[in-house]
Amino acid sequence: MGKNNVPKYVYYFGGKHADGKGDMKNLLGGKGAGLAEMTNLGIPVPPGFTITTEVCTAFYEHDRKWPEGLEEEIRENLTRLEEEMGAKFADPVNPLLLSVRSGARVSMPGMMDTVLNLGLNDTTAQGLIKRSGNPRFVYDSYRRFVHMYSDVVLEVPHEAFEEAIAAKKAARGVKLDMDLTADDLKELVEEYKDIARKHTGKEFPEDPWEQLRGSINAVFSSWNNQRAITYRKINGIPGDWGTAVNVQTMVFGNMGETSGTGVAFTRDPATGENVFYGEYLMNAQGEDVVAGIRTPHPISDLKAAMPEIYAELEQIYLTLERHYKDMQDIEFTIQDGRLFMLQTRTGKRTGTAAVRIAVELVEEGLIDKKTAVLRVPPAQLDQLLHPMIDAKAKTNVIAKGLPASPGAAVGRVVFTAAAAEEWNSRGEKVVLARTETSPEDIGGMHAAAGILTSRGGMTSHAAVVARGMGTCCVAGCGSLIISEKDKKITCGDLTISEGDWITLNGSTGEVILGQVPLVEPELTGNFGKMMEWADEFRALNIRTNADTPQDAKQARVFGAEGIGLCRTEHMFFAEDRIRAMREMILSDTEEQRRAALAKLLPYQKGDFMGIFREMDGLPVTIRLLDPPLHEFLPSLDQTKQIEELASDMGIHVQKVRDSIGALHELNPMLGFRGCRLGVVFSEIYEMQTKAIFEAACELVREGVNVMPEVMIPLVGTTGEIEMIREYVVRVADETIEEYGVDLDYMVGTMIEVPRAALVADKIAESAEFFSFGTNDMTQMVFGYSRDDAGKFLGEFIDRNVLKHDPFQSLDQEGVGQMVAMGVERGRSTRPNLKIGVCGEHGGDPDSVEFFHEVGLDYVSCSPYRVPIARLAAAQAEIKQPRK
Amino acid sequence: MGKNNVPKYVYYFGGKHADGKGDMKNLLGGKGAGLAEMTNLGIPVPPGFTITTEVCTAFYEHDRKWPEGLEEEIRENLTRLEEEMGAKFADPVNPLLLSVRSGARVSMPGMMDTVLNLGLNDTTAQGLIKRSGNPRFVYDSYRRFVHMYSDVVLEVPHEAFEEAIAAKKAARGVKLDMDLTADDLKELVEEYKDIARKHTGKEFPEDPWEQLRGSINAVFSSWNNQRAITYRKINGIPGDWGTAVNVQTMVFGNMGETSGTGVAFTRDPATGENVFYGEYLMNAQGEDVVAGIRTPHPISDLKAAMPEIYAELEQIYLTLERHYKDMQDIEFTIQDGRLFMLQTRTGKRTGTAAVRIAVELVEEGLIDKKTAVLRVPPAQLDQLLHPMIDAKAKTNVIAKGLPASPGAAVGRVVFTAAAAEEWNSRGEKVVLARTETSPEDIGGMHAAAGILTSRGGMTSHAAVVARGMGTCCVAGCGSLIISEKDKKITCGDLTISEGDWITLNGSTGEVILGQVPLVEPELTGNFGKMMEWADEFRALNIRTNADTPQDAKQARVFGAEGIGLCRTEHMFFAEDRIRAMREMILSDTEEQRRAALAKLLPYQKGDFMGIFREMDGLPVTIRLLDPPLHEFLPSLDQTKQIEELASDMGIHVQKVRDSIGALHELNPMLGFRGCRLGVVFSEIYEMQTKAIFEAACELVREGVNVMPEVMIPLVGTTGEIEMIREYVVRVADETIEEYGVDLDYMVGTMIEVPRAALVADKIAESAEFFSFGTNDMTQMVFGYSRDDAGKFLGEFIDRNVLKHDPFQSLDQEGVGQMVAMGVERGRSTRPNLKIGVCGEHGGDPDSVEFFHEVGLDYVSCSPYRVPIARLAAAQAEIKQPRK
Repeated sequence: MGKNNVPKYVYYFGGKHADGKGDMKNLLGGKGAGLAEMTNLGIPVPPGFTITTEVCTAFYEHDRKWPEGLEEEIRENLTRLEEEMGAKFADPVNPLLLSVRSGARVSMPGMMDTVLNLGLNDTTAQGLIKRSGNPRFVYDSYRRFVHMYSDVVLEVPHEAFEEAIAAKKAARGVKLDMDLTADDLKELVEEYKDIARKHTGKEFPEDPWEQLRGSINAVFSSWNNQRAITYRKINGIPGDWGTAVNVQTMVFGNMGETSGTGVAFTRDPATGENVFYGEYLMNAQGEDVVAGIRTPHPISDLKAAMPEIYAELEQIYLTLERHYKDMQDIEFTIQDGRLFMLQTRTGKRTGTAAVRIAVELVEEGLIDKKTAVLRVPPAQLDQLLHPMIDAKAKTNVIAKGLPASPGAAVGRVVFTAAAAEEWNSRGEKVVLARTETSPEDIGGMHAAAGILTSRGGMTSHAAVVARGMGTCCVAGCGSLIISEKDKKITCGDLTISEGDWITLNGSTGEVILGQVPLVEPELTGNFGKMMEWADEFRALNIRTNADTPQDAKQARVFGAEGIGLCRTEHMFFAEDRIRAMREMILSDTEEQRRAALAKLLPYQKGDFMGIFREMDGLPVTIRLLDPPLHEFLPSLDQTKQIEELASDMGIHVQKVRDSIGALHELNPMLGFRGCRLGVVFSEIYEMQTKAIFEAACELVREGVNVMPEVMIPLVGTTGEIEMIREYVVRVADETIEEYGVDLDYMVGTMIEVPRAALVADKIAESAEFFSFGTNDMTQMVFGYSRDDAGKFLGEFIDRNVLKHDPFQSLDQEGVGQMVAMGVERGRSTRPNLKIGVCGEHGGDPDSVEFFHEVGLDYVSCSPYRVPIARLAAAQAEIKQPRK
Repeated sequence: MGKNNVPKYVYYFGGKHADGKGDMKNLLGGKGAGLAEMTNLGIPVPPGFTITTEVCTAFYEHDRKWPEGLEEEIRENLTRLEEEMGAKFADPVNPLLLSVRSGARVSMPGMMDTVLNLGLNDTTAQGLIKRSGNPRFVYDSYRRFVHMYSDVVLEVPHEAFEEAIAAKKAARGVKLDMDLTADDLKELVEEYKDIARKHTGKEFPEDPWEQLRGSINAVFSSWNNQRAITYRKINGIPGDWGTAVNVQTMVFGNMGETSGTGVAFTRDPATGENVFYGEYLMNAQGEDVVAGIRTPHPISDLKAAMPEIYAELEQIYLTLERHYKDMQDIEFTIQDGRLFMLQTRTGKRTGTAAVRIAVELVEEGLIDKKTAVLRVPPAQLDQLLHPMIDAKAKTNVIAKGLPASPGAAVGRVVFTAAAAEEWNSRGEKVVLARTETSPEDIGGMHAAAGILTSRGGMTSHAAVVARGMGTCCVAGCGSLIISEKDKKITCGDLTISEGDWITLNGSTGEVILGQVPLVEPELTGNFGKMMEWADEFRALNIRTNADTPQDAKQARVFGAEGIGLCRTEHMFFAEDRIRAMREMILSDTEEQRRAALAKLLPYQKGDFMGIFREMDGLPVTIRLLDPPLHEFLPSLDQTKQIEELASDMGIHVQKVRDSIGALHELNPMLGFRGCRLGVVFSEIYEMQTKAIFEAACELVREGVNVMPEVMIPLVGTTGEIEMIREYVVRVADETIEEYGVDLDYMVGTMIEVPRAALVADKIAESAEFFSFGTNDMTQMVFGYSRDDAGKFLGEFIDRNVLKHDPFQSLDQEGVGQMVAMGVERGRSTRPNLKIGVCGEHGGDPDSVEFFHEVGLDYVSCSPYRVPIARLAAAQAEIKQPRK
């Protein structure tokens, strides 16, 4: 509160003391708080004052008028500023110039407006020329001001000014703004004013006070420009926060060769290395660095060029880093040999840098482990786990799809799974390009270094499987026409044929022509330390989704504490197995089905033994067959396959066709799959159960610690789980008795059908564990087919109808309610119910935090997401400890 | 309680007084209570006693042993019986014979066991022969007893006995049991005993007490035979209710030509006419009537044959009907010229009879209107609303499908919608036979008298549309192979070709060869009265689902109070409209789409004018476009249609093919449809809104009272409804202003996506009404595609994994929770929110009762279900009045 209990509207900073402090971001905005804090630290900051965010709110509440008393406070602070600077605003002899900048609570880069060099008019310009003896500098500043003010305050389209300066340079035969003379610039000032006059119908304002009022109002107004509104919506920033306005003494990097401006990071934001990193430009204002017309120098050059300034800057950055205990992103201006700091804020960084900086700050004693763990955005870890495109390489990006599975891959293009396997067996690195993939492509997907599809979303088959395998994938790249038939990719005029080299960046979705050098990941060192600390804090267990011993092994390397989802259907697609599977499907009687299943049993048993062995001592959740049976049959247009199948089985081709037709479904996602198969054809699940327990029992005899958890998919009613549980337990117990071993196991269910969450209390009576299948649950709660939603989900997010893709990050408002309900109701009848999640969301940090909050025991995600989940779980526990 | 505070196990009836009463069904079972009540009314009932249902429960709780004191009580009651009858159980001179019958709280016909003629052995048989002087009667009874006791108590397979009697008849050269002599029957008794001995390894029990104990235990045990367990599961009867046992003096209809047995109804159970209706057989026991070996006489013949008996029977049935105030189903036996009543219970009846009896009982002053309204099962009304197959006609049923839309249809078979329309235009009655129907078949479905499909469930397209139109439909008749290509139906060896006559019974699912005579419905008279009474009581409003003025008109006749669902997509399939629709879909730009939509606007406007006019003064809820766009395009194999379309639009065939391919969806149910179209292509909904309000405004000018309610389908998020509501309101207000009329309207949403129910509080902020789309909600809450679930739903119900088809009757346990949640949350932010339901469940009586209970304002159903819903709503209010 200011005097007389009216709110204090304006906070002064200068003379080594500020009214505000660094923790007053809500009131002063990020920039204002940073300027106040630097002032208090004794760092040279051009003095000025901050008009608070509350004024912005009041401005909007009162029809865009200033609250009473604001003008008076501004005048008081301006007087204080004039006294400190020994110059006067609007003074013809010794004029004080100002910058006016926005500054919200959180950085909204480029979204709001700025006016520099404010206070110039024809009179003050003359005063400044006399005092500085530098007419070129003054007219350069003046033309910048007229341009910027016209653009920002008067809303004159900026193209007109750019055309005017371009014409001037052409007329003078020069290339750079720098090469224009004082006279050229003086002429430009007049030309600019003409442009403004023509557009507004009024004279350009000469009165500095009018300029100041206009600029302050323009900054407030820019809080609600369309750009800023959209940015806030996307980033979830409330519209009533408002922006502060920073009015600051103008310092000039464009006063000549002893002046300049620069930006720097206190550590390398790409690698995290503890070196001072940045660039600067002499005789320039900040905007010139951004414009990229001249090439800036690396900050290290400043050491030689201006050793004293560099030493001072070094002292300041070290002070700031120690003060903020984090890497800072700073802006500075050198005015005629004197250093001024214009901004400090926490610097953005890569995942690699985030880990290294956090770990080294702990080692330097600046922060503790908890803080370090909170410092790394978990999703950034992804960058550390995959080969990456060398940041220094030049790339020829020809198309951009969805970043479906991170990492990078270089390979020669092939168009069929068979070709991928064949080329791979010859030692070739390949990228498998398909319109979309299907379960039959699994072999080829395994063989490929990267996968590219022209159709399908972030949770399409290709994307899900690729993430599961940790293989780089760019999905749904709609601008490519991939023709499997012609073995070529068409991209505009460009054609890529079989065998051509391409590079995929699965972290950005870029498709790059040719071979680009890659950098390999390192999992020890800083990364290892960070993971170790995360594990010290977290409450959630982290499991993995793995279908093969290889995946299981990889996941253990990444720290998985069990398998939360082992799908059994992928096991049926191999050449030697698919035949028996098809025989089973085409059988007419239970007897025939049992005979065919008997052929599959040894394969399944072998698969399970491999996985159990890898996961010795850790629980393994095995999901019984889930997909609809037609996925295992050829499609009706695969005439040759159908004929072979008929001939193999000794039945008529038409019978095969009829069976395929009969199994066809309009909405297979909602069809005859999951436990519905187990109800109608109990012999399938019985075989799988037998295979699981024979495998487990044999290993128990060998001394392996096997912890099987049998999971029944797609349960929606108590009838289903009661019926299936009954025979699973029977077969399991019979098998264990047969082998005469001791073996504990669990039988539980997926909770993915919405109805299952609604009746979770009843289902829990027959289930020892729940595993939320939030992929399918999202499909059903939203009514979105993940295979088809790509047609509109992008539009929905663009139009802000959806905040994010609910297949990537759990929809906590809707689907989250079902999860919370399932947990609460499930535990109401079985308090010790073990509960996990095995959808894609298990590896999404926001979702992991939610799962922690609703009390899950574990999350399960693809192997490459395990470290991310470990870190996210640690952060969740630190933020909201479980009692 | 009996003496000494131990429970009373046995209730005596006889001598014009019974220990029990008619309202003690829970304790005495239905039969026992009826016998007690008749005894108390002074009606001649063979005396006896009832062992309570509690004994049955105790029997199971104590390892199938009798509770202490039971035997003593039985002996006491038997002594009382012997005294009353002047005969003694097991007495060699004057033996008392008994019947032992089950009797649960509710009738479980044929599920449990009965033993008759108990107490016979070689000694008592001689006594009985001496007393009756009728050895044939005695041996007839004796052989019946040995057979029945062996079957029921000793579990000897009954075939052996049937073979023995068949052999005896063959040996004697006679055809009927009646023609066997006393000696033949005596021999049979011995042969039967041999059979029993061989099977059990023991002598057939001669001790009447052992026989009695065995029979009582057999009845108790039969409560838990597989048949009874299954019946109870299906009918929701608790397993712990138990059965009572009725031990009664045996009376004999087989004593000769002055003896007999019969069953009758106090009114005609088929028509409800107030006439005594039934049949009897002389010299027989009850089982002979059922066995159907001899043809029984109509009950009216008894008047001439035994006038005194008939008069007595008449007196009794009138007494019973007046006493029970409902039509009774009675059983009687005449023993040597003396009448005994063996049973009375409320009689089963047809819908027509139910209405007539209820109305006439009110007119006779026996019951009040509320009681009458409760007397008619609403689903039975269906029988009154459609043409029915004449019950007297002989039919040749060749197959049975699902009873998808009630009524009957006779017509000549055609295989395409075009043929149906063409034949119909020639005045031919046709039945449209298709593998399954699609929206393109609408015209032909309208033209057909009946629809037959070989694929699809109760909520397949054919079924839903047929019910909506009130057209008879048999769906999913899997035993027929319908070939549209060859224009024939194959059914085993039988082939039905185009033009052949068939008859469909949509109420039973029967497909009948040839033409069967039909009976037309009558909607006035008793039916009209019943409906009038129902309307006096109900709280729910009843609306209809109607897409055409004809449907709307029909529904008003049936009493609809508005349209709850007017689908707009069916309007686009007519020849002249589909072209513009396709043009719209194949457009590349918004501008092209708007141009195509402008062509559709006049059609839509005309449709709406027709409907609004019919519904003058009643609300009309119009759902904006819902299905995915690909439904309006030809499929990829319709080469000719694609070529025509390309040529019409002047574009390349490949472009049409590409568009069809691009719109293809793997799970269209969960795809790009409903309000998702309205988000991405707002111009579609804008056109529809404009058409609605132009139509409404023009009619307002004409003085029609139009009450439009615009309904946005498939909303799952607040973003969707906020965005669409904004432009719908804008277009509506602009149009109203343009016309300068006064018009109130509402904008609301379907609640069908589960997520919508979860966030109903937020959605209600932008919706003035909710309409639950429980069809789609059932699909998503269960994860069942209604088009595909036919593959397993039948099995699920057969295996008792599901209690009923959730598409026919609302799943109150699961989907019902979502409905209740939507209602509660919606009204939490908008207390006056209008809420209805417009799924198929709106016409299902159980579901209507649920919707009444959760507080909906209305239900909407197909026109032919409106009367059913009116009655169900009245019953719901009577059972559970809204405060």
